[in-house]
Amino acid sequence: MSGDTFGRLFTLTTFGESHGPALGGVVSGCPAGIPITEAAIQQELDRRRPGAAQAGAASTARKEPDRVELLSGVFEGRTTGTAIGFCIRNTDQRSADYSAIKDVFRPGHGDLSYHAKYGARDYRGGGRSSGRETACRVAGGAIAQAFLATLGIMVTAYTVELGGIRAAVPGSLAALGNVWERPFFAPEDAVITAWQGRVAEIKARGDTLGGVVEVRAEPMPQGLGEPVFDKLDARIAAALMSIGAVKAVEIGAGCEAARMTGSQHNDPILPLPHRQEASNHAGGVLAGISDGRPLVARAWVKPIASHHQPQATIGTDGQATSITVGGRHDISAIPRIVPVCQAMAALALADFCCLQTRQAGAMGI
Amino acid sequence: MSGDTFGRLFTLTTFGESHGPALGGVVSGCPAGIPITEAAIQQELDRRRPGAAQAGAASTARKEPDRVELLSGVFEGRTTGTAIGFCIRNTDQRSADYSAIKDVFRPGHGDLSYHAKYGARDYRGGGRSSGRETACRVAGGAIAQAFLATLGIMVTAYTVELGGIRAAVPGSLAALGNVWERPFFAPEDAVITAWQGRVAEIKARGDTLGGVVEVRAEPMPQGLGEPVFDKLDARIAAALMSIGAVKAVEIGAGCEAARMTGSQHNDPILPLPHRQEASNHAGGVLAGISDGRPLVARAWVKPIASHHQPQATIGTDGQATSITVGGRHDISAIPRIVPVCQAMAALALADFCCLQTRQAGAMGI
Amino acid sequence: MSGDTFGRLFTLTTFGESHGPALGGVVSGCPAGIPITEAAIQQELDRRRPGAAQAGAASTARKEPDRVELLSGVFEGRTTGTAIGFCIRNTDQRSADYSAIKDVFRPGHGDLSYHAKYGARDYRGGGRSSGRETACRVAGGAIAQAFLATLGIMVTAYTVELGGIRAAVPGSLAALGNVWERPFFAPEDAVITAWQGRVAEIKARGDTLGGVVEVRAEPMPQGLGEPVFDKLDARIAAALMSIGAVKAVEIGAGCEAARMTGSQHNDPILPLPHRQEASNHAGGVLAGISDGRPLVARAWVKPIASHHQPQATIGTDGQATSITVGGRHDISAIPRIVPVCQAMAALALADFCCLQTRQAGAMGI
Amino acid sequence: MSGDTFGRLFTLTTFGESHGPALGGVVSGCPAGIPITEAAIQQELDRRRPGAAQAGAASTARKEPDRVELLSGVFEGRTTGTAIGFCIRNTDQRSADYSAIKDVFRPGHGDLSYHAKYGARDYRGGGRSSGRETACRVAGGAIAQAFLATLGIMVTAYTVELGGIRAAVPGSLAALGNVWERPFFAPEDAVITAWQGRVAEIKARGDTLGGVVEVRAEPMPQGLGEPVFDKLDARIAAALMSIGAVKAVEIGAGCEAARMTGSQHNDPILPLPHRQEASNHAGGVLAGISDGRPLVARAWVKPIASHHQPQATIGTDGQATSITVGGRHDISAIPRIVPVCQAMAALALADFCCLQTRQAGAMGI
Repeated sequence: MSGDTFGRLFTLTTFGESHGPALGGVVSGCPAGIPITEAAIQQELDRRRPGAAQAGAASTARKEPDRVELLSGVFEGRTTGTAIGFCIRNTDQRSADYSAIKDVFRPGHGDLSYHAKYGARDYRGGGRSSGRETACRVAGGAIAQAFLATLGIMVTAYTVELGGIRAAVPGSLAALGNVWERPFFAPEDAVITAWQGRVAEIKARGDTLGGVVEVRAEPMPQGLGEPVFDKLDARIAAALMSIGAVKAVEIGAGCEAARMTGSQHNDPILPLPHRQEASNHAGGVLAGISDGRPLVARAWVKPIASHHQPQATIGTDGQATSITVGGRHDISAIPRIVPVCQAMAALALADFCCLQTRQAGAMGI
Repeated sequence: MSGDTFGRLFTLTTFGESHGPALGGVVSGCPAGIPITEAAIQQELDRRRPGAAQAGAASTARKEPDRVELLSGVFEGRTTGTAIGFCIRNTDQRSADYSAIKDVFRPGHGDLSYHAKYGARDYRGGGRSSGRETACRVAGGAIAQAFLATLGIMVTAYTVELGGIRAAVPGSLAALGNVWERPFFAPEDAVITAWQGRVAEIKARGDTLGGVVEVRAEPMPQGLGEPVFDKLDARIAAALMSIGAVKAVEIGAGCEAARMTGSQHNDPILPLPHRQEASNHAGGVLAGISDGRPLVARAWVKPIASHHQPQATIGTDGQATSITVGGRHDISAIPRIVPVCQAMAALALADFCCLQTRQAGAMGI
Repeated sequence: MSGDTFGRLFTLTTFGESHGPALGGVVSGCPAGIPITEAAIQQELDRRRPGAAQAGAASTARKEPDRVELLSGVFEGRTTGTAIGFCIRNTDQRSADYSAIKDVFRPGHGDLSYHAKYGARDYRGGGRSSGRETACRVAGGAIAQAFLATLGIMVTAYTVELGGIRAAVPGSLAALGNVWERPFFAPEDAVITAWQGRVAEIKARGDTLGGVVEVRAEPMPQGLGEPVFDKLDARIAAALMSIGAVKAVEIGAGCEAARMTGSQHNDPILPLPHRQEASNHAGGVLAGISDGRPLVARAWVKPIASHHQPQATIGTDGQATSITVGGRHDISAIPRIVPVCQAMAALALADFCCLQTRQAGAMGI
Repeated sequence: MSGDTFGRLFTLTTFGESHGPALGGVVSGCPAGIPITEAAIQQELDRRRPGAAQAGAASTARKEPDRVELLSGVFEGRTTGTAIGFCIRNTDQRSADYSAIKDVFRPGHGDLSYHAKYGARDYRGGGRSSGRETACRVAGGAIAQAFLATLGIMVTAYTVELGGIRAAVPGSLAALGNVWERPFFAPEDAVITAWQGRVAEIKARGDTLGGVVEVRAEPMPQGLGEPVFDKLDARIAAALMSIGAVKAVEIGAGCEAARMTGSQHNDPILPLPHRQEASNHAGGVLAGISDGRPLVARAWVKPIASHHQPQATIGTDGQATSITVGGRHDISAIPRIVPVCQAMAALALADFCCLQTRQAGAMGI
């Protein structure tokens, strides 16, 4: 109820802020018998690590090993069906970096809204609003992906736009190749040089950039999603919008759909085995329920709030003042946010897969 | 869990399909003592009624009185604090209109995905996936708005784009005037003629249109929203995306934010009483929690799936066929979807307002 | 969250008080394809009807037809998998009976606690705290039983004690015969005369009686229940204790278990097909999870609070006064509470059956 | 949904089994500003520690330091309003003790039901069904009690019966004195010798004992609890019955209530300041909502399943066999279960206190 838990059947509950002893979480409702290793979770965590090769110049030099430790729920390499606890220790807590912002609200951050909500705030590194919280999403998402893998479902995220420069996006996971080996987790090679140039230019000005992440899941089972309020696309939207920097979410054709006519937008339904040859403006969701086409969603990410130019703001005393944010910060949430988007989509899908087994067809207690 | 309930503390549970005896719902968790009348709920329902003056040529001529009856939870004109039940009878059930689609899946509708999910479907008018389901959202939303009114919060929705034509949008509720008196629930007078022309043109071609709805809430209390997964914007996104035709959701600057730099995007924090004079790219939400600025969100609505041109599809036997959808259908979900968007935003806010009272500042049992 | 919903996957949400236009509810999450008729639901409702033959002298002469109407979710005689709405109109609303208690709190009723909670109360017949609310539980329970029947699970409740007089209770559903044909829903014939005598004696004194109801479910699948907080017995306890008059709940040997030693209490585990021949002190639940033995639970029911003797109390002004409750009231919640106990157990089991399908063994999306 | 979370607003999510690296949990929804220290949590944990002076001869000699570590959510000695994570390392994992039971199901334990549910089980020490899991409940309960203390509410549990011998129970917390200083957490001195004799006798026979724990909360605010399914007593029943060894739960007069007449059972409502002088058969709950009288509940605890006498059972191959359980085990869950009962009641009350603030009277956003 306080928003520390995501999901209904396959759930992730997280705790932790950037400067406490540790972050961690509990995955509850994961079926028994799923193969899980710390190494597989660690691989996902390493992808959101600052300084990873893929992040290139867009990320801070700050080092956080983000070493995950599994604490329960896995026995002899497989899930037992009971709660999976995990922990990630905080090791790099330079509190001194943050003392300057104790009494001033940084624009674009949660400083003012947290202060208003709780009457006080842990000002060290943003406390619970820190992007560091997303490490637990990635760990939980890795467990969700292990479960989805047993159902043959694969979820992948990649950057499709950075600083206003759009990449060419292949139309299938097969055509994407391994996005994790490309800088910025790009979906193609050609755009990388342009993105590197844009980052260098903005970095020199002490400013920051936004971008767009696309998530694809395929092959998709039919029937995931619920009729009214818990439509598959509604949960995907909530999943992606719950990531701090995301300001818009699209499904399939997204905003473009609103400018098409019905005859342009409707996807023909082709008989098998030609089903996947038709357009997929719906993004794999019809009336909130998956139709077996690939799920396609996009998250629009705002620029990092911590730029190095002076900003007008107020102090905790309510008086006008100015702040210039120092410290080590990423130029863009891209690409570190990419595995986070993938994790959230995987968590949402894992939850629906658990839910789906109770429907008529699957009911066989 | 099956998606028939929205909210956590202030909840709406709905039931009903387009061709059963009735639709209805239960509002649970509404505080005691809130003034509620059937007339106030009816007024909201009348706004989504087909054939309302405001809908103009965009809506079908089909008549549905959508008469709401309050069944419980209100005593001597005020809520008792216990469950509020309501019912809307279906009176216009021309089942004959739908027999032609019993064995064929309509593209753009939930026919195929429902069939895959449940192994069968109520093919009359879309069953539970019918837009008629939204009448219950509007009724529940009217109760939410009555509650919000006691806190001084006002939520309003209006059309900002139709068929690709953008309206000029005033920057405050005060400047909007009464959108309910304008055709298409437009935010200004000038755009109406262009929209009417676009509708007439498309109608003549047997095609349909999409558009964009904006929702504003002001004044907003500070502190609504939860830190991680239940951010205010995540819940608003889920609320709007759960409406059948919505394919994208934006908060504040939305997609545009991803193309700004940090120094362009961050809103300065001005001291009171000048707070509202600054830009509001954040749309009133920082780190998932309201900061006291107006909440601004937009829903991008796809064109109505039931156009009158022939479409390639399959039958329940899996074989290729073609369908031309007949019957009476709206040209666009605009403007009937406008009060639905308003209702969903009101429900999400009412829920957060109930949740908020338990935070530190308000804790005073 | 406001307690109007029971269950997690197979849920019942209810509304309604004794003197509003109607009571009703929504069953959400019932799998598709389950045969449901109004007649089957009506049969269960008729069992809790005052004046039913079985109730004998223990029940009021007040007539409430309690006619249920299905409003959605059933198509061609089977559930569609979407929300099932139903409604029960209030037809016998003699408000005049209750005006005397508007300003005085009746001992043993919720008058004082509701007043304290909500700042006001619907004093007509207890409002939401009226036993009439349980009609919706019985209707929802009938739908749960229809679902359980497709899994071969049968749930039955019966009276085992009335006014301190214990019945002899057979050890299996087969040996019980049809409890619904016996007065008081007794588990045997011999005790009936003694119970009738006890009721007549107490009625003459203007006083009321309590009793004990037992619920059995068999055959039971193995594996229902969750490890820690949502143990099968914990949910059954909550289900039964949520019925207004219940003040204690036992599972299996119940209170007696606390006075046995471990060697007396542990049930031997016999190999199939002899499993059911061993003792069943555990009541079919080990570590919170069903072990395949019959589920056995008992609800201890307090005497009806509305007796006809004068009682010391206070008025809404806080001053001491006295009240003698008039009107038509049952002598005991027994036997009308029996189908309510059965309904609640059925709802809890139906919910666990839906939940169970997602476990490892059943996972086969 | 998998039962690892207790509560709705003030929630505790736990993970961990007896032989993994660690147990732990997340408290979510605790208001900001509550003073919390590791020492206060540790004090509660020490009370359920085996070998504590109070446990006397009833407990095993096994040593588990159960050292709690706070990982998040507390800043400068007070809660921040965000998730509170904590961890308890397992240090005494003699797996060798358990290898003998790998292929045999112990009667009275969850071995068979877990095996049936998950298709496999962590046989070391009961895995998730181990009583060790309750350490996390006690840690979470300590945080709940810190919150309740700020509202002036005090919750205390104590043993009222052991091995069939009843203690004399004072009628108020004030008269109880400090139960934590007495062996068995007894409510009076006189019964202790008799209990010690009973334990010694049973221990000599290699058998085990059950007992009864009472929980009292006072002073109680009025208005806690929800009308229908989430009655205060229903949640208390679920809270206590979710503890592994509990087989019955009573509220107030409990089972005795079913044998009283209405005129005997109803508690008079006395004007203030004499309110507390009347009988309290209701146990502080009327129609599911607290009336301001002390909350009184009792949990009936079965004997420890691990006695040292031979028992008939089956192996994982389904064949009949016999088992004699060895190892170090408590003679009774009493008194180690006492702080667990207290913790569960505190968690349930903390949750209702958070929920209550949203009602009409307290609504003041």
